[in-house]
Amino acid sequence: MLVVMEAGATPEQVERVCAEIRAMGYAPHAMPGPTRTAIGITGNRGPIEQAARIERLAGVGQLIRITSPYKLVSREFHEADTIVTIGDVALGGNAVVVIAGPCTVESREQTLGVAEHVAAAGAKLLRGGAYKPRTSPYSFHGLAEEGLRILAEAREHSGLPVVTEVIDSESLPLVEEYADMLQIGARNMQNYSLLRAVGRSRRPVLLKRSFAATVKDLLLAAEYILNEGNPNVVLCERGIRTFDDSARFTLDLGAVPIIKQLSHLPVIVDPSHASGRWQQVVPMARAAIAAGADGLIVEVHNDPAFAVCDGEQALVPERFNAMMAEVRRVAAALDRDLA
Amino acid sequence: MLVVMEAGATPEQVERVCAEIRAMGYAPHAMPGPTRTAIGITGNRGPIEQAARIERLAGVGQLIRITSPYKLVSREFHEADTIVTIGDVALGGNAVVVIAGPCTVESREQTLGVAEHVAAAGAKLLRGGAYKPRTSPYSFHGLAEEGLRILAEAREHSGLPVVTEVIDSESLPLVEEYADMLQIGARNMQNYSLLRAVGRSRRPVLLKRSFAATVKDLLLAAEYILNEGNPNVVLCERGIRTFDDSARFTLDLGAVPIIKQLSHLPVIVDPSHASGRWQQVVPMARAAIAAGADGLIVEVHNDPAFAVCDGEQALVPERFNAMMAEVRRVAAALDRDLA
Amino acid sequence: MLVVMEAGATPEQVERVCAEIRAMGYAPHAMPGPTRTAIGITGNRGPIEQAARIERLAGVGQLIRITSPYKLVSREFHEADTIVTIGDVALGGNAVVVIAGPCTVESREQTLGVAEHVAAAGAKLLRGGAYKPRTSPYSFHGLAEEGLRILAEAREHSGLPVVTEVIDSESLPLVEEYADMLQIGARNMQNYSLLRAVGRSRRPVLLKRSFAATVKDLLLAAEYILNEGNPNVVLCERGIRTFDDSARFTLDLGAVPIIKQLSHLPVIVDPSHASGRWQQVVPMARAAIAAGADGLIVEVHNDPAFAVCDGEQALVPERFNAMMAEVRRVAAALDRDLA
Amino acid sequence: MLVVMEAGATPEQVERVCAEIRAMGYAPHAMPGPTRTAIGITGNRGPIEQAARIERLAGVGQLIRITSPYKLVSREFHEADTIVTIGDVALGGNAVVVIAGPCTVESREQTLGVAEHVAAAGAKLLRGGAYKPRTSPYSFHGLAEEGLRILAEAREHSGLPVVTEVIDSESLPLVEEYADMLQIGARNMQNYSLLRAVGRSRRPVLLKRSFAATVKDLLLAAEYILNEGNPNVVLCERGIRTFDDSARFTLDLGAVPIIKQLSHLPVIVDPSHASGRWQQVVPMARAAIAAGADGLIVEVHNDPAFAVCDGEQALVPERFNAMMAEVRRVAAALDRDLA
Repeated sequence: MLVVMEAGATPEQVERVCAEIRAMGYAPHAMPGPTRTAIGITGNRGPIEQAARIERLAGVGQLIRITSPYKLVSREFHEADTIVTIGDVALGGNAVVVIAGPCTVESREQTLGVAEHVAAAGAKLLRGGAYKPRTSPYSFHGLAEEGLRILAEAREHSGLPVVTEVIDSESLPLVEEYADMLQIGARNMQNYSLLRAVGRSRRPVLLKRSFAATVKDLLLAAEYILNEGNPNVVLCERGIRTFDDSARFTLDLGAVPIIKQLSHLPVIVDPSHASGRWQQVVPMARAAIAAGADGLIVEVHNDPAFAVCDGEQALVPERFNAMMAEVRRVAAALDRDLA
Repeated sequence: MLVVMEAGATPEQVERVCAEIRAMGYAPHAMPGPTRTAIGITGNRGPIEQAARIERLAGVGQLIRITSPYKLVSREFHEADTIVTIGDVALGGNAVVVIAGPCTVESREQTLGVAEHVAAAGAKLLRGGAYKPRTSPYSFHGLAEEGLRILAEAREHSGLPVVTEVIDSESLPLVEEYADMLQIGARNMQNYSLLRAVGRSRRPVLLKRSFAATVKDLLLAAEYILNEGNPNVVLCERGIRTFDDSARFTLDLGAVPIIKQLSHLPVIVDPSHASGRWQQVVPMARAAIAAGADGLIVEVHNDPAFAVCDGEQALVPERFNAMMAEVRRVAAALDRDLA
Repeated sequence: MLVVMEAGATPEQVERVCAEIRAMGYAPHAMPGPTRTAIGITGNRGPIEQAARIERLAGVGQLIRITSPYKLVSREFHEADTIVTIGDVALGGNAVVVIAGPCTVESREQTLGVAEHVAAAGAKLLRGGAYKPRTSPYSFHGLAEEGLRILAEAREHSGLPVVTEVIDSESLPLVEEYADMLQIGARNMQNYSLLRAVGRSRRPVLLKRSFAATVKDLLLAAEYILNEGNPNVVLCERGIRTFDDSARFTLDLGAVPIIKQLSHLPVIVDPSHASGRWQQVVPMARAAIAAGADGLIVEVHNDPAFAVCDGEQALVPERFNAMMAEVRRVAAALDRDLA
Repeated sequence: MLVVMEAGATPEQVERVCAEIRAMGYAPHAMPGPTRTAIGITGNRGPIEQAARIERLAGVGQLIRITSPYKLVSREFHEADTIVTIGDVALGGNAVVVIAGPCTVESREQTLGVAEHVAAAGAKLLRGGAYKPRTSPYSFHGLAEEGLRILAEAREHSGLPVVTEVIDSESLPLVEEYADMLQIGARNMQNYSLLRAVGRSRRPVLLKRSFAATVKDLLLAAEYILNEGNPNVVLCERGIRTFDDSARFTLDLGAVPIIKQLSHLPVIVDPSHASGRWQQVVPMARAAIAAGADGLIVEVHNDPAFAVCDGEQALVPERFNAMMAEVRRVAAALDRDLA
């Protein structure tokens, strides 16, 4: 349920409505807009029976029922695009934001080198894994805190805010300390305890779609985070599992305009993991922007042949430059520019 | 196996090699290039044992083994991009070609009206179904020959060559008579008798990917057509079946650069059938071109609310104009223009 | 729409209702039952507006709307299980029917040898491909008419009726001449021209589910055949395409009870093609019967290492005997026996 | 790598080999067998270079390379079937074990009532969720500790050991205190932190396959648990996501014989979640046992119409009785009995 206040409603009237909602046992979410304030209601199962009590309060314009299973993330609830700010970078506005860096933080030299390069090429955030969820227990699982320290140093050198994956509640406080943005990986998209934990964090969250999640599942996962009080969520399409075996995953770019229609949250695309081979990364990066994505997250490695994981899909610095030039042109064709 | 002749090889030497290949029981495919001629060999299962006999012939430069299961459609076999000509339209070159029209030919007025509109907006071919394969026997199956006659009339008025679906060998001669290009629909992509039949036609073929076909399956289906002697095949990605239920099909744009790498045939994309809703059609049309597609095939209807099938996914003329403008800008960002 | 006549309705009253239905432009399907006759109506799109005209006729008991998109194949339309008779074999009754034989008819000796063996082991029908739809144009496509002749000879020797695949309308008359049952393969399940052609045949049809078909698609494909006048259709589950790569296809045994609930047609299972390896064939044969299938279609080869196709999934005669023994016990546990 | 000791090798010789393995920086896993001891080696990436050092030690019979990506769970590593003991119930031996109970612990009466009923009908373990991972944050998430207390009381009354889901490390100590077996749900199958945590538990683990996991992914998830020292893992197939929409998930029974071939761990099947409707539960329960599963986990509810979740797929007590009778007969047809 969404309570739309009249244009001239006073702060006291807004507060009175919120108090009434609380008294009913629900949670009010006041969202001031340019001309009027809307107040979302969550915590109810099914329709709100005493809605008439709210309708009669002073300053209330209109009551709107939310029909989707998610509420806080829905466009019905919040019409304008959400812009998520990470450090001084705004994601979700007109500017297209590129996040780049190595799949895994392997060493100080590698990470600082890549960071410096991608910053010069126009990337606005640095990615890199310190904790890596791997399908096999015998694969490399990341440098952990040492990796976080290297990322922090790379931020200082390159000026780029850092996004890195958090894999459990135990390591969350440490990751929060070092990172500017928390990434929830595809395998943890339905790890609801972790979603709740990052929902209580003050850091913005990059939520990757599970390779088996419908668009609705993804939006409901984001709803968990917003419902805990963290409104700064960026969604990321990174490929789904299908019968086709010509690529590692099938990048579902059709999800981009669908999510944009259903939700106000920013959407970016990861063309690296889906492709599995660098030859597909550049065309899919262009296509993602053309489909309406607000940004990209791309793997760059200075020496992919020696990468400890996913080397085949990483771009070498020169190819990353080429990608940036091509993406810049496609963005311009949509009247957007690269942040 | 590919026999690459020396730069100065004479026509007689080429013919001598072809004769030898025939004598071995295989089929030679001579492909003259700007500097040298290559001769493909098909009809063998496994490696060619007497390859040395060919190697010793005058004018033979090099023997190259083809490692993919398809041969005639592969880039290994034929390096340069194939350009397919339909009437006076070239598909597969630098210019991006848009094919547009109603899903189904419903009436003379509707078809001529839509044809005129899309021609004015820059479409280069007219699409429209006279024979419709439908999941239910009780759905509308098209106007058949009357539909073909209407399409021919629309061609005359609009100047656009016509592409229309052929659903069986029985109706093929009739469709060939009226159409400029034959479409094989997704449900018939593995109807090998029909593939062979259009392979013997003089008309170019638009081969749509089955919603359950891997990229390899699609290329092998095209191989059937080329193997019968028809080199003019355009491939079309139109969405695959996956678990996701937010769209009718998942448009696999990642297949575009993969096919481009594996094959020399032109690739176009159908953003209408995958989306199922017009709101996704325009973004996916842009994304397809950004991914490197050589063209689009799009449904346009003057009155989608009254369309006998698939009305929800059809663009009204105004939205088609908007799509053309956007696609033109994205194509320009890739240094391509709209035909 | 289903018109249920009163218990005492006369043949003249039934005919009167049929005539009225024809006069309305629809097709009546009279289905006499033990106590009363039902008359199905097809040919309408949407509800029948003049239904009241039928309701008022003498002998009419009740009008029932059919809610599923398929009609003739639905349980709503025809409540009792359909039993399809092939030669002297009844498929769809209490007895479980095993169809066995080589994937492909390779030679006279092989086919007669396998036929004799499977007949002795309790199989009731002989399978074997004379026309093989293959993904690659360069694979073996079957012995064609020679294969049909070998099958006919094997029938004479073994006493088993023969089921073999028909791949196009052109070869249908020839296949009909030799075969007792026509198989429509998975790749042709949505080849509607071919479905219509076998719908006009007097031979029973084995319709295999496409690896990309939903249960609804399969039932609608069967509806095409029944709608042309051939009521003798047996459905076959043979595996669908999914992301899992541990088997060739994912055998969807859950479809068996679902189809049984929705349709009156017999359902059998092909455990050979889905598994791709003989080690899975026997457990999946047992599971299919336990799920409620009316029969099995299994590949048996006397020398799988030398099979021209699909050798890995064929059972050698000894393993087929073992399978029969195990399947017999599972069938008995469901109070069914092996035909 | 697997070191197979000679039949007469002494405990000292076994220990000497283990010490050498440790000295190389790897982990030895001694597995005494009826005639000889095998010692598995983990912790290596790629082949072990100094293998010759081990080969030369006294008592060493043979060195076997493990070719699968998983080791501890593989049949190559451990040939005999593993039997997991929960309370006094043995799972993985000849007897088929049925686990039954409500989806969610809703109240004391409901849980004790269902427990009593399923115990009388032959179930050997009680299932029931106290912590429920739900797709929506607004759905019911379980009674938490109160639910665990009710389960413990139900165990006392019914005599059935209890299996219940654990959703995060935080609540693991509490769940361990009350439960006899820990369930990892499908959505947490790749929550590696949680897998490691239950790998350090003394409780046996029921690991459900994610609806997007390949068989290999599932075995690697189990490897995480065994690698932490907990050998008591039971795998559970519960349906995968596919394009088919006739059931909630496609139950992949073909995975049962494949897992049995690749791994020594017990495998059970959950026919309730895949079906989504009780009408499919009984046939799929029969089919699972016929496919070779070691047990079933089934939802039973005394009043499904009022279940707080998944009511449609729950069996009422009478249908559960019928299922047990049918499953007992199918098990007997495979020379197995119901525990």
